[in-house]
Amino acid sequence: MSEIKTIVVNRSAYADNDLEAESLRSYLKEKGTFLVNLMSSPGSGKTTTLTRLINELKKDYRIGVMEADIDSDVDAISIAKNTGVKSIQIHTSGMCHLDAGMTKSGLDNINIEDLDLVFLENVGNLVCPAEFDTGATLDIMILSIAEGDDKPLKYPLVFEKCDLVIINKIDAIDYFNFDFERCERDIKMRNPNATIIKISAKTGQNINDVCKYFRNKIQNWKEN
Amino acid sequence: MSEIKTIVVNRSAYADNDLEAESLRSYLKEKGTFLVNLMSSPGSGKTTTLTRLINELKKDYRIGVMEADIDSDVDAISIAKNTGVKSIQIHTSGMCHLDAGMTKSGLDNINIEDLDLVFLENVGNLVCPAEFDTGATLDIMILSIAEGDDKPLKYPLVFEKCDLVIINKIDAIDYFNFDFERCERDIKMRNPNATIIKISAKTGQNINDVCKYFRNKIQNWKEN
Repeated sequence: MSEIKTIVVNRSAYADNDLEAESLRSYLKEKGTFLVNLMSSPGSGKTTTLTRLINELKKDYRIGVMEADIDSDVDAISIAKNTGVKSIQIHTSGMCHLDAGMTKSGLDNINIEDLDLVFLENVGNLVCPAEFDTGATLDIMILSIAEGDDKPLKYPLVFEKCDLVIINKIDAIDYFNFDFERCERDIKMRNPNATIIKISAKTGQNINDVCKYFRNKIQNWKEN
Repeated sequence: MSEIKTIVVNRSAYADNDLEAESLRSYLKEKGTFLVNLMSSPGSGKTTTLTRLINELKKDYRIGVMEADIDSDVDAISIAKNTGVKSIQIHTSGMCHLDAGMTKSGLDNINIEDLDLVFLENVGNLVCPAEFDTGATLDIMILSIAEGDDKPLKYPLVFEKCDLVIINKIDAIDYFNFDFERCERDIKMRNPNATIIKISAKTGQNINDVCKYFRNKIQNWKEN
């Protein structure tokens, strides 16, 4: 198991988070590091999904992971153990989200010089993380079917902000009343450009579709 | 279906939320209204659990429900339709939690004069609601097994603050790797006095244990 570096970040001093986020995006472009901000509720399967994705994508990219959490190190340890990639834990000092300045602190600590792709696992929360641009190149979220198909109505902002919505735990569909059609319609109502991919991180079903999505996005980003 | 009253609350002007919360608790005691603050992640089953509980408890108590949400009215409509009790929707103006002042605004709108028991369904979020005392008589939370057994480690504050932790969706145990022993040990480490009850809101399993818990709590509160 890799040794896990844990850093503690505090609320940024920057008055204008949007400006700071744009500046971070330019910096990442210059460095050639693609940053993915991953948002979801607690327990939607972020860490399991990341583990699956990284074990596929690490053949093609040098990957790093920044795990944001209020207090524990369990995710960074799990990622390092199960993928072998560079992983750090960011403690948010009780904060319920990351902003661009906090993200930049994380990136400075993971050292992006030798990384093509960095995943930021934001704090498990459907409300606050959506309000703060982290400076990521791509925003994605995971909704598990166990959470219910009404979430796009109840937490509209996070669905509006995401380029990709992953619907997870589809292997457990027999246990939950989840109307995919309703859910997808409500996501598209909020965000007509969102891509939606249904997966089971547990069984690996459709993980390749998500990998293909990332490969295309990274290729387009490099070319533009 | 009852007509749903929706109110919009804003961040309170009160500098000291703890003081305001204590004052609200005294006011509720004087009025004889027991207020339960219900916290959880999005999709843990708060509304389904409340529906089950209310349909049992409404034989003995005059019940009201305040559903807090960022934007939608789906929960208040569902509660009113499926239980028949008085239900209002509180829109939080984008806020990720309720404080005591916002809770008091809700109570003023639902009119507690003819209510013995009011449930406040807080915003679905394991982080922020735990930081603000609403003034409730009892704090409870729901963790669904689909979210994972590591949540007491990752969101310690909400587990510390709760009198009762309900572990929901136990009917789906075959689909999830959930270690009850680990979870209960970690809850007790944070909060030795917490009561833990395992239920399935979907099938109704052990709902009677939660009802019994409430009846005891309300009885003790009345006598002290």
